[in-house]
Amino acid sequence: MTLRPIVNTTFRKLQNIVGDSNCSRAKEDLACYAYDATARTYMPDAVLFPKNTEEVSGILNLADKYGFFVIPRGSGSGMTGGSLAVKGGAVIVMTRFNRILKIDKENLVAHVQAGVVTGHLHKAVEKVGLFYPPDPSSSEFSTIGGNLAECAGGPRAVKYGVTRDYVLGLEAVLPTGEIINTGVQTAKGVVGYDMTRLLIGSEGTLGIITSTILRLLPLPETVKTMMVIFDKMEIAAEMVSEIIRRHIIPRTIEYMDNASIRCAESYLKTGLPIEAEALLIIEVDGKKKEADIAIKELKSLCMSHGATRVETAKTKEEAANLWKVRKAISPALFQYGPDKINEDIVVPRNRIPDMVRKINALRAKTGLTMASFGHAGDGNIHFNIMLDKKNKEDLKKADAAVETLFDYTLELEGTISGEHGVGITKAPYIAKEIGPVELALMKKIKKVFDPKGILNPCKIFP
Amino acid sequence: MTLRPIVNTTFRKLQNIVGDSNCSRAKEDLACYAYDATARTYMPDAVLFPKNTEEVSGILNLADKYGFFVIPRGSGSGMTGGSLAVKGGAVIVMTRFNRILKIDKENLVAHVQAGVVTGHLHKAVEKVGLFYPPDPSSSEFSTIGGNLAECAGGPRAVKYGVTRDYVLGLEAVLPTGEIINTGVQTAKGVVGYDMTRLLIGSEGTLGIITSTILRLLPLPETVKTMMVIFDKMEIAAEMVSEIIRRHIIPRTIEYMDNASIRCAESYLKTGLPIEAEALLIIEVDGKKKEADIAIKELKSLCMSHGATRVETAKTKEEAANLWKVRKAISPALFQYGPDKINEDIVVPRNRIPDMVRKINALRAKTGLTMASFGHAGDGNIHFNIMLDKKNKEDLKKADAAVETLFDYTLELEGTISGEHGVGITKAPYIAKEIGPVELALMKKIKKVFDPKGILNPCKIFP
Repeated sequence: MTLRPIVNTTFRKLQNIVGDSNCSRAKEDLACYAYDATARTYMPDAVLFPKNTEEVSGILNLADKYGFFVIPRGSGSGMTGGSLAVKGGAVIVMTRFNRILKIDKENLVAHVQAGVVTGHLHKAVEKVGLFYPPDPSSSEFSTIGGNLAECAGGPRAVKYGVTRDYVLGLEAVLPTGEIINTGVQTAKGVVGYDMTRLLIGSEGTLGIITSTILRLLPLPETVKTMMVIFDKMEIAAEMVSEIIRRHIIPRTIEYMDNASIRCAESYLKTGLPIEAEALLIIEVDGKKKEADIAIKELKSLCMSHGATRVETAKTKEEAANLWKVRKAISPALFQYGPDKINEDIVVPRNRIPDMVRKINALRAKTGLTMASFGHAGDGNIHFNIMLDKKNKEDLKKADAAVETLFDYTLELEGTISGEHGVGITKAPYIAKEIGPVELALMKKIKKVFDPKGILNPCKIFP
Repeated sequence: MTLRPIVNTTFRKLQNIVGDSNCSRAKEDLACYAYDATARTYMPDAVLFPKNTEEVSGILNLADKYGFFVIPRGSGSGMTGGSLAVKGGAVIVMTRFNRILKIDKENLVAHVQAGVVTGHLHKAVEKVGLFYPPDPSSSEFSTIGGNLAECAGGPRAVKYGVTRDYVLGLEAVLPTGEIINTGVQTAKGVVGYDMTRLLIGSEGTLGIITSTILRLLPLPETVKTMMVIFDKMEIAAEMVSEIIRRHIIPRTIEYMDNASIRCAESYLKTGLPIEAEALLIIEVDGKKKEADIAIKELKSLCMSHGATRVETAKTKEEAANLWKVRKAISPALFQYGPDKINEDIVVPRNRIPDMVRKINALRAKTGLTMASFGHAGDGNIHFNIMLDKKNKEDLKKADAAVETLFDYTLELEGTISGEHGVGITKAPYIAKEIGPVELALMKKIKKVFDPKGILNPCKIFP
């Protein structure tokens, strides 16, 4: 659908809603909100910074009346283009919704505005002995609203689940400007359809989330971190299954392949064994005694199953250093090429060895630089191809490799996205995973929420 | 909407789908499928026992074409009328979908047909060292399909969450006869809208669930059970908050008031202190050592906070005896009256004392027999009024008491149903909790799935 541009009279109405200093059509401002982590760029026609739900509602009322696109945006750190103004329109930046409204220590619940940075929430609840488990890699800058919109995951999901598992209810503004409240403030609640989880993971296409009620846990008494080095990639991959088979559920089992190790080492120079084919970062938490027992058990399990070295962090600083290795990969990868193709496939945990073999074969066949790492504990592998997209030959090979990988993922009974969402980058592939009847249903649901197609166009559906 | 009756030619077509011996219009057969746990009775026009998804699809195709109502049914143990043929039509009994298709020990996943009895699944996965936490009180007879349709809870939700937290994906048949597959087989998955959780808790109004993929956990090494007696009801209620405040998360904290204790005692005659105002059954699980430590900590916490007695089960048999007390209440209540009004309100955990006071006041005011018990750990209280509904005076008082209680629940930021659903019994009250915009959205979603209004009419929406 092509809607109308934001004409001067419309923009003045928007100014009236958010105030002159909270909206702009200046090129330099628009440019700041034209990109996301996909490195694709689409200039919006206006950028708006509402401060409360009523203002968001007012903006959507206008959009409904005058016919322009609205694109909700948190920190713009999405991996699939969810916050890009693909067809122009007004980008609504939610960063002024930055208040933690309540941390209820008695009921283990937090009321949080959508623009709160996830890492800030972590710190605030941890200060009072509580714990918000979802921890996407972007947590230092991504917002709770964005996390909900994409149903963010992260490394701790193997034990604690994902964002949707911690949301009790939410407030959102519909494309018609109507404000809705969904869900409950309690641990249980089954009155009416589950609108909360329909909005979670809907990638900003059904409504703009303005605040949410989150479930918290008591903060685990201790966290223990270890790094395990493997000569052979397949032994590492097999190890992941073996841990779960032994009924040990660490809070993270992060995986890095040789390319990731080399890459992190050349960036950090901490003496990682660059000949190692794989590395796992395993973290357990809980009561001090149990965590100590679990980490010992894991150490002997790894050593008896072919690991070449195990390093256990003795202090918080040592643990932070181990994580530095894992976190270095993403930025360090750019030494291999100016452009990154980054997919977040998931396979059943025990199919990781198959997937590793497939990726090795693809690397050998294409000659492209590929690095994989990620949340092996839940089968969620971040598969990266580094290239120069201006090299059309390479780009073609990379696109074909991604498609092959998606097909193989589905063959292994996996999914093409564990946490990044579909957005625009995976929209061309959605029909590989979702059948025509199911897709048609989803589109009808979109129509129920957004009859005029105003909100976040071109996302999810091809 | 009034649809057409099932005429002879239509019934013959139904016979062709499921086979002569798997359908009936005989009064004595219909009578067996005319009731549920609400004790209300509505005679269906036909009862059908399909054996696979294709047959369910065939039935719904016919319903779509010839216009008759279809009502899905598991074991008919629902508390709010979800499986009642309020307007007649064909009841589809799902009990032949009774196969556990796969228990995947490597990926901690089970593939289960909708008609499998939840307790059977418990036993099957526990046999291989795994654990399916949701455990509604009906688990010995209710089905997985019914549990999903209502989003069943149960006592373990305080630690483990509810049914929706364990469903990865499902297969369902739409009212049009189309078969859909939703969700994933993996721990993570965010491709498209969350149709899985839209169907969970939709009370059989959006589709008929035929099978599901469930997430399992490792079976906890040990379970420890204790019973704590309190002179004063409010001390017990306060205790529940205190336990969580100390960051101990038992797997159950079950509550019984004096009426429930008296009732269970007169049924079981095990020497319960009938003068005690309240009783908690607390259960912890995990590694043996931790569970031992936790139970000791709980014991001293309870004794130092005004409990009059703590009994810890030393064997599985002793634990089973403690649970017998809790499980005796429901049947035993009928000694107080032939009819039961049974609500499952939830309030934030620290508002339980307020709710207990309110119930006491209601009891004093009305003179009715009221007993409350339930899952205090998550604020989910089963509030019962025992009466003879033929006594119109009492019925009027009871209805008014329920409405007062619902209003107060919402005032305390709770919900009118934690696990039973809305069905027909709570439909008149849904607008107290769900706003008009949200209700209108839900009705539009119903229309998307079921444009002709064939499936499970009169449920949820008044």
